Amino acid sequence: MDNRPTVEVCFTPNLYPLHMDDADVVVVIDVLRATSAICTAFANGVDKVIPVSTVEEAIEYKQKGYLVAAERKGQVVDGFQFGNSPYSYMGKELKGKTLVITTTNGTKAFHTARKAKEVVIGSLINLDAVSNFLIKKKKNVLLLASGWQNKFCLEDTICAGAIAEQLINTGDFRSVQDSSIAAKYLYLSAKENYLGYLKSSSHRRRLKKLNLNEDIKYCLTPNQTDVVPIRKGNYLVNYKA
Amino acid sequence: MDNRPTVEVCFTPNLYPLHMDDADVVVVIDVLRATSAICTAFANGVDKVIPVSTVEEAIEYKQKGYLVAAERKGQVVDGFQFGNSPYSYMGKELKGKTLVITTTNGTKAFHTARKAKEVVIGSLINLDAVSNFLIKKKKNVLLLASGWQNKFCLEDTICAGAIAEQLINTGDFRSVQDSSIAAKYLYLSAKENYLGYLKSSSHRRRLKKLNLNEDIKYCLTPNQTDVVPIRKGNYLVNYKA
Repeated sequence: MDNRPTVEVCFTPNLYPLHMDDADVVVVIDVLRATSAICTAFANGVDKVIPVSTVEEAIEYKQKGYLVAAERKGQVVDGFQFGNSPYSYMGKELKGKTLVITTTNGTKAFHTARKAKEVVIGSLINLDAVSNFLIKKKKNVLLLASGWQNKFCLEDTICAGAIAEQLINTGDFRSVQDSSIAAKYLYLSAKENYLGYLKSSSHRRRLKKLNLNEDIKYCLTPNQTDVVPIRKGNYLVNYKA
Repeated sequence: MDNRPTVEVCFTPNLYPLHMDDADVVVVIDVLRATSAICTAFANGVDKVIPVSTVEEAIEYKQKGYLVAAERKGQVVDGFQFGNSPYSYMGKELKGKTLVITTTNGTKAFHTARKAKEVVIGSLINLDAVSNFLIKKKKNVLLLASGWQNKFCLEDTICAGAIAEQLINTGDFRSVQDSSIAAKYLYLSAKENYLGYLKSSSHRRRLKKLNLNEDIKYCLTPNQTDVVPIRKGNYLVNYKA
């Protein structure tokens, strides 16, 4: 009997009910670009991030005077200062502030996992940090890819595969689901050249049309920060070891 | 504007609603073992196959005197002569007969696609035959992996990737979804050694426990037959070109 904790991959939020019972910690992943943006915000000194599901909630927070980011289909929603470009979150004006954010897929995935015991934010830019956080925990991990409108997406799966691979390599974790095995295979064939591997991916094409190539390069560059955003109540904070 | 027909991959029946509107022809794939068994039955002279979703329906057909196969969780259901081992379908007694079949995942996927304009049965054992059939049609193709209880499974995805690759290589088809791109990547890394590639897959482990290694080897050996089972009313027949 193998009692090691599991690390599994769920490809999209609408498959979450099939996987959730086996998870102690859920890692929400939206590489292009919500979780990369959230990690960037914490790396630049943001104090709290409040992910919300709807533009209506975002508007309410805006009316209360919060800094609010809203993105739908790759673009900043009219009337908001920020979307989910990580480059929006590098300025000094965010330091110590609370940021409210709603995005097409990432904040939806966060909402999907609302009943999970623990929720962590993962991306390629904090890959090793989030992996090390999970390795120390030694609990059952579910890597939840945000996908694109509930469809499978390649970059989130590759990021999930990268985290799974690091956990498996310690010898302290195991994967039993085929989705996890596939994610690791995809990561292993992608890892030498993420940009090239993803050149035909639907999301990259979508963002390229919007002139977001710099964002894509940034989001596909691993280990730019050691922040680990974790859920605390209804908001996120940076985990302090 | 690229007007070529699309070939896309849907990983599990419960994601089908996200993909179905773009499909003219749906290919149902359950490599281990329902669609391999159905192809084997036609290759051995079965006249018609009636896939049913429930054991209750299977019992009704049995009471009417039909040959009936029923499998759940890898094993023959009590009271039935056949499960979904392809080796059950190689005898002369099936020639010219109608076979009724219900299985854990494959017949469920068939039912999921019931509103599709056309439905075809795909497996590795009729890989080239089904690919050539689709290439001649030049219509939008959706490759529907049956999965395992609605979860992603590796062998169906690899089979879907193999068919997609053949269609794309003609230059007459295109894929736009990330699921299709991932399926092709997985197929390309698996194709030299299906058995080895799938050694850690959940379904192979499941069947191995049931001493079904011979079945697995058979189902993972491409191009053993040129049958192309197609839907006609509520049953399947072998397509005659």
